[in-house]
Amino acid sequence: MRALPDLLLDPVIRSALQEDLGQAGDITCRLVVPEGARTEARLVARAGGVASGLQVARRTFEMLDPTLEITGELRDGEGFATGDVLMSVRGDVAAILTAERVALNFLGRLCGIATMTAEFVAEVEAHKARITCTRKTTPGLRLLEKQAVLHGGGANHRFGLGDAVMIKDNHIAAAGGIAAVLERARLHASHMTKVEIEVDTLAQLDEVLAVCGADVVLLDNMDTADMAEAVEKVNGRLVLEASGNMRLERVAAVAATGVDYISVGALTHSAQTLDIGLDIDL
Amino acid sequence: MRALPDLLLDPVIRSALQEDLGQAGDITCRLVVPEGARTEARLVARAGGVASGLQVARRTFEMLDPTLEITGELRDGEGFATGDVLMSVRGDVAAILTAERVALNFLGRLCGIATMTAEFVAEVEAHKARITCTRKTTPGLRLLEKQAVLHGGGANHRFGLGDAVMIKDNHIAAAGGIAAVLERARLHASHMTKVEIEVDTLAQLDEVLAVCGADVVLLDNMDTADMAEAVEKVNGRLVLEASGNMRLERVAAVAATGVDYISVGALTHSAQTLDIGLDIDL
Amino acid sequence: MRALPDLLLDPVIRSALQEDLGQAGDITCRLVVPEGARTEARLVARAGGVASGLQVARRTFEMLDPTLEITGELRDGEGFATGDVLMSVRGDVAAILTAERVALNFLGRLCGIATMTAEFVAEVEAHKARITCTRKTTPGLRLLEKQAVLHGGGANHRFGLGDAVMIKDNHIAAAGGIAAVLERARLHASHMTKVEIEVDTLAQLDEVLAVCGADVVLLDNMDTADMAEAVEKVNGRLVLEASGNMRLERVAAVAATGVDYISVGALTHSAQTLDIGLDIDL
Amino acid sequence: MRALPDLLLDPVIRSALQEDLGQAGDITCRLVVPEGARTEARLVARAGGVASGLQVARRTFEMLDPTLEITGELRDGEGFATGDVLMSVRGDVAAILTAERVALNFLGRLCGIATMTAEFVAEVEAHKARITCTRKTTPGLRLLEKQAVLHGGGANHRFGLGDAVMIKDNHIAAAGGIAAVLERARLHASHMTKVEIEVDTLAQLDEVLAVCGADVVLLDNMDTADMAEAVEKVNGRLVLEASGNMRLERVAAVAATGVDYISVGALTHSAQTLDIGLDIDL
Amino acid sequence: MRALPDLLLDPVIRSALQEDLGQAGDITCRLVVPEGARTEARLVARAGGVASGLQVARRTFEMLDPTLEITGELRDGEGFATGDVLMSVRGDVAAILTAERVALNFLGRLCGIATMTAEFVAEVEAHKARITCTRKTTPGLRLLEKQAVLHGGGANHRFGLGDAVMIKDNHIAAAGGIAAVLERARLHASHMTKVEIEVDTLAQLDEVLAVCGADVVLLDNMDTADMAEAVEKVNGRLVLEASGNMRLERVAAVAATGVDYISVGALTHSAQTLDIGLDIDL
Amino acid sequence: MRALPDLLLDPVIRSALQEDLGQAGDITCRLVVPEGARTEARLVARAGGVASGLQVARRTFEMLDPTLEITGELRDGEGFATGDVLMSVRGDVAAILTAERVALNFLGRLCGIATMTAEFVAEVEAHKARITCTRKTTPGLRLLEKQAVLHGGGANHRFGLGDAVMIKDNHIAAAGGIAAVLERARLHASHMTKVEIEVDTLAQLDEVLAVCGADVVLLDNMDTADMAEAVEKVNGRLVLEASGNMRLERVAAVAATGVDYISVGALTHSAQTLDIGLDIDL
Repeated sequence: MRALPDLLLDPVIRSALQEDLGQAGDITCRLVVPEGARTEARLVARAGGVASGLQVARRTFEMLDPTLEITGELRDGEGFATGDVLMSVRGDVAAILTAERVALNFLGRLCGIATMTAEFVAEVEAHKARITCTRKTTPGLRLLEKQAVLHGGGANHRFGLGDAVMIKDNHIAAAGGIAAVLERARLHASHMTKVEIEVDTLAQLDEVLAVCGADVVLLDNMDTADMAEAVEKVNGRLVLEASGNMRLERVAAVAATGVDYISVGALTHSAQTLDIGLDIDL
Repeated sequence: MRALPDLLLDPVIRSALQEDLGQAGDITCRLVVPEGARTEARLVARAGGVASGLQVARRTFEMLDPTLEITGELRDGEGFATGDVLMSVRGDVAAILTAERVALNFLGRLCGIATMTAEFVAEVEAHKARITCTRKTTPGLRLLEKQAVLHGGGANHRFGLGDAVMIKDNHIAAAGGIAAVLERARLHASHMTKVEIEVDTLAQLDEVLAVCGADVVLLDNMDTADMAEAVEKVNGRLVLEASGNMRLERVAAVAATGVDYISVGALTHSAQTLDIGLDIDL
Repeated sequence: MRALPDLLLDPVIRSALQEDLGQAGDITCRLVVPEGARTEARLVARAGGVASGLQVARRTFEMLDPTLEITGELRDGEGFATGDVLMSVRGDVAAILTAERVALNFLGRLCGIATMTAEFVAEVEAHKARITCTRKTTPGLRLLEKQAVLHGGGANHRFGLGDAVMIKDNHIAAAGGIAAVLERARLHASHMTKVEIEVDTLAQLDEVLAVCGADVVLLDNMDTADMAEAVEKVNGRLVLEASGNMRLERVAAVAATGVDYISVGALTHSAQTLDIGLDIDL
Repeated sequence: MRALPDLLLDPVIRSALQEDLGQAGDITCRLVVPEGARTEARLVARAGGVASGLQVARRTFEMLDPTLEITGELRDGEGFATGDVLMSVRGDVAAILTAERVALNFLGRLCGIATMTAEFVAEVEAHKARITCTRKTTPGLRLLEKQAVLHGGGANHRFGLGDAVMIKDNHIAAAGGIAAVLERARLHASHMTKVEIEVDTLAQLDEVLAVCGADVVLLDNMDTADMAEAVEKVNGRLVLEASGNMRLERVAAVAATGVDYISVGALTHSAQTLDIGLDIDL
Repeated sequence: MRALPDLLLDPVIRSALQEDLGQAGDITCRLVVPEGARTEARLVARAGGVASGLQVARRTFEMLDPTLEITGELRDGEGFATGDVLMSVRGDVAAILTAERVALNFLGRLCGIATMTAEFVAEVEAHKARITCTRKTTPGLRLLEKQAVLHGGGANHRFGLGDAVMIKDNHIAAAGGIAAVLERARLHASHMTKVEIEVDTLAQLDEVLAVCGADVVLLDNMDTADMAEAVEKVNGRLVLEASGNMRLERVAAVAATGVDYISVGALTHSAQTLDIGLDIDL
Repeated sequence: MRALPDLLLDPVIRSALQEDLGQAGDITCRLVVPEGARTEARLVARAGGVASGLQVARRTFEMLDPTLEITGELRDGEGFATGDVLMSVRGDVAAILTAERVALNFLGRLCGIATMTAEFVAEVEAHKARITCTRKTTPGLRLLEKQAVLHGGGANHRFGLGDAVMIKDNHIAAAGGIAAVLERARLHASHMTKVEIEVDTLAQLDEVLAVCGADVVLLDNMDTADMAEAVEKVNGRLVLEASGNMRLERVAAVAATGVDYISVGALTHSAQTLDIGLDIDL
């Protein structure tokens, strides 16, 4: 998938830099780094993984100081090993040190998500099921985190509340049952909008199948036996997504049931930061 | 510590709501939830921990719909057990469901940080050492995450690059050594700004002690024996902060060396989201 | 469909007020309207139509002066006749006069769109086809204009470039043909995202039908005979949208072909402002 | 008149791009357009008219992708015929297709206004009267629409409520009559601010002439006989502006009365979008 | 003149509060002021003067804490003596202390400007000349400072570059002389826009009088004899504004020449802050 | 001290330009300056002083028109004499004239502060005392004004409420006395945050010395005899800052008492604008 235009990334990067610079800027660099000092720094992986956030890190350095020269062959979505150089930055020492933490905070988090996603993807590679994310993302970073899921080989779920209909248990209750809620959705939803409905039991799935109006069914917290039966019942008429406590140890078994998607909240809410350091020639 | 004024929290909450609402709003609720439906919902802890983000969650609901009534006796910084109700929200069903995910994304992350902080704090309670955070925070959420560290009983490090001087190895190298860098800082730093310097060895600590100009010394990646010797050398003349791979299993031993602070990047970059659900009467 | 939360409307309304107030505020009212003068004003339809923008107009007055009392029983989406009062505003004379033009600029445009949409909808009511909008909206007002289409009884197309895939002739050419482009889309598109593809000929439609991967087909600038044949070919397997120069005089004939949607750019780029005045007791 | 600095245009263009890109960017181009594909596109007029929005369209493409090369000799304010190329854009295919709709939405609307203005201007060219706009503009686009009126050969009225005093019927009523309101204005208005007052009858005009304090008189909804008499009465002492339902068929007759300005709300609230297409080599 | 709507003031007040609160809020109050402590504070004049900024100060307190109760009978534009209470604030101690400095920074500066303006106005009260301000205002505070000039009894000049034409020496030179520049202005300027031209000599004034097109003439750095002669030459046909080093000691003599306006840059660039303190019951 | 990154300056400069340009841009230049006219302008000091704001002025011109060429050897913090050229700008005449006033408004104010600071610094150069600023800055310009104090040779106090603890009389009263307030601060303040406490009497100073917890003591409105005694009492254990009505005539005597810092609110709230003009070749 092609990269995003910088226009979409720049506001979040600018905010992050302003947050870290505070109101007075980097007073340490301003006080102690001699003017004119130049160097080359390398962002180095302290562990292997899958790259995400390289474009963001590049813009972070550029936005702080447009004269910094950024080089590097690795691209978001590609793998790297411990010790690999993810990116090199050459220019004013103070500018590099000032931007370092913001760049690394983005990069560590996003590589962490991409890498965790890749681990889940590897578990299910023998099956058709794809790993997808949820809306359990970090407030303010959803776009970047959803890109990281793509970089790790996963698929994106809806971006937010406005781009797809997702009917959960409370919506069903509020609308008066599955038939009623799907009828409301069928009447009002745009033809350009997918409709997903959550079911907790096979009986509910039968209700969904009895009426039309959903494109995707979320099997919420079902055991694998029920999922397999759901797959059989549906027989390709709808897309099936399995959800609920999808740990790495379990996803292969879930995928083996034949579901189409497995959504994993942990990808964005519990990925470990990947350790990346900045090595500098001084 | 008193709560923050809403003025400081509102921009990040507003952005998070806009991010999740997208451009068209919550099309599911708009399509399927009947008008006039009202309910009461409870934010319920699925695990025990320390509260942080309650003020944020309250503002999230209020900002989406000022007519929602929020109640609850728990306050940020207080502990809770599995099954405890953190907050109740009464009013329009659609408003509650629309704001739910943003409120929970904030709350889960912040309670996670507060709870992890409390675990570290508990480990060192027999010692004078305090647990503190770093700048390895989520871009855009530093204020909230630093509050969560306070709620968990930890202490805050500097907010960012602008409010304290922190001289690291690369700054020392760029300035030409410890004596030179501290001389520069002494000449230029505000009398209202603390100066911290990082040392990797006891020899470097001796250099720092030989000149003046630092308020705090960061012992970076030292073993506990060296830390203990550093404590002895310094003998209360400077504040000592231990840093570098501070795992829960290790902090008691580090605290036992007599250092004043132990900084733990993992508090903000690797805390697990605490599971909180929204239970609703429908 | 339920109303939008004010949170989504307020930024565009605030900008519009600031645009009209300029930097010095309403210098006419400030200079010539005596303090303390109060009145009641009525927004009155100079022509009949369908309401849209009432919520926006209410927020416009409230944002300028929260003490203004707004009353009125008409709701967005309801019809009105010449001379009907759309809304009443009671309070400070200057506040009402200052907000008047912005409120009317919104209301006239949005009622114009809703009313034009309703005319198209009325033309096709004997058929299953629904009238839908396009991305040919006024920069900055897309959300409000798309709501106005809903208020007029129409359906919404995708909101923008980010919430659905729409493959047009240039995309097909760039990707190397219909089969190639749909294969790319099938591989990469989210399961929560609809895919539409534009065809100009029945031969192209055959190509689309021969491969899978599209949910909706846009019949671009076809004559009605070809549309009817397309409907027959597709036989309900895909959603069909007719597009291209859809004038009011023609939509009934187009709808009679059996297509599912008719998209009309004119709804948002060429609707006439509906004349609404502010009558005031002075 | 010289062009505006980009600084004034960029915020509205950036907002428009963000509105269309949504939160996930152009998912169609990202999914289906191969990387590295380059092309040249031409913005081509499907009808003749007067150019406005060329600077805006240029910035739209540049802001999305600074490497796009924009060429073209036509300038805002110049006329063009059907089939003329308004602007050429060379570079990345995806960038061009992504920015296309925003650029065309601006350009179509602004050329429409400039072209409609030119038609009104042509009607009155035998007279001294100039065509001018009103505040009935699209919320958020006033600057661009007022420029379009200039590009079409018209004159600008005040920008908004803050840069000139315009006393209408309700202001007169609130202040207690024409003499009272002009006295208030005379006392308080800046010497750098023009004062206009609306009159509905010749009797009111006499009242205005009897006191001083106005620079411009708006003749609101008068018939041409009364306008001619007003011109005679005023005899050049004040600027006269005719207003109220100024249709194209009528403006020559109005201009023949000798008024100085004719204000036409329709220029900005009812101009038809001018059809401009993007032709691309693929 | 009526007050401005809060909508115009709030953005600058919010920015000022955010600037002072920084990223972590008022850490002193948060640390040391006990929760629940309430008090009443009074803003007390340490010197006499003319009020300006009371509305701004009120909003500053309200924006920080909407539960604060603000009372006070003094209004912007009214005079006060040393020791007078300008405003009282009752509520949470910490909220009052946190907002104090921002409120006083605004109030001291704006009362200073209003008071200085009143001194100039008093000097010329025997003459028709009015005191007016310039564009030499503090970046970001122009609206508030121009209001303060009004509160002090002065008149406002144009707000900025966009609301009136002001032709200075360099414009004359660039356009090729006075006749040429006025011809250009006459052709292109809106009928709702005043045109002022600067002259340095009586000869230049003659040139201006020989052509039409200006409403106001700025007599720049002329001595009073020349000003008097200019008044005689113009004989009421144009408004005359005297400018250039207008010190308090000199303005009466300038006013005596018969000019209409005297513009004083010092009102906004060199007014002394008026000393206002916050007295509190603790 | 190194310069700030443009990233921190640009928002305030952009706002200032937008404030002056208004909504319609510089209508004078747009109307009367012929296209294509180019020139060179020089910012020339009409009085001697210390430079501050050169970086800001450069960005002002660049932001309005990136093609302007800015040259000049003077740097912020360096002195200049009457008639010196501070900066030269070459390019489009209209762009230079449009940006002139904003650039000069910044530059005059900031040079004024730097120059006044330098005068205070010169007064105390025989002593160790350093001159420092306060929070009595212009709302919105704190960063620039604090930089100007540095450029003048002064030191910066805390930036705002969030980066250091400063306990004043009202805080002491609210917390229940000096011992109580310092105990609260000691318990809760970050180890990276300095704590200052204000005392009005030597008795209060004794209380402070009796407990620990403060880094800096503010001697508020003491006479020089008391200050000297305070210096003796403290004997280097704490930093001493003298404050309260610090006029130029008095600071040498204050410095002679041996205090470490003298804070002068007048530097930012009462500095006179330094007169700088723009000379242009036309």
